[in-house]
Amino acid sequence: MTITTYTVTGMTCGHCVTSVKEEVGEVPGVTGVDVDLATGLMSVHSENPIDTAQITAAVAEAGYDVVTPS
Amino acid sequence: MTITTYTVTGMTCGHCVTSVKEEVGEVPGVTGVDVDLATGLMSVHSENPIDTAQITAAVAEAGYDVVTPS
Repeated sequence: MTITTYTVTGMTCGHCVTSVKEEVGEVPGVTGVDVDLATGLMSVHSENPIDTAQITAAVAEAGYDVVTPS
Repeated sequence: MTITTYTVTGMTCGHCVTSVKEEVGEVPGVTGVDVDLATGLMSVHSENPIDTAQITAAVAEAGYDVVTPS
């Protein structure tokens, strides 16, 4: 199993968390999504690694941004 | 037609606005609800005046508070 952690910005409340979890949960291969509102940390569970671009796109679809590690 | 204005606190994003509009819109007699996120101002439209307690309860159901004029 793979767990990949991202930082999502722009979430302000539990509704935002729900939106992100729904969109990312729909990415093929994703088996689970945990999001912490306070820190913005999102853990994506999957059987095999998933292209970061797909996760980033799903977060954007929900209306938020993934911080790209610099 | 009656338009009554309230101030709602605790809303942080558009999802919150949607939740408030949905709950208040379900109060019997309400014909329309406008909510401004930035100011918290909510205008409730109805044919006849509606008990404030019903509106306050609907806002609370959504998870927010109505400021009671002091």
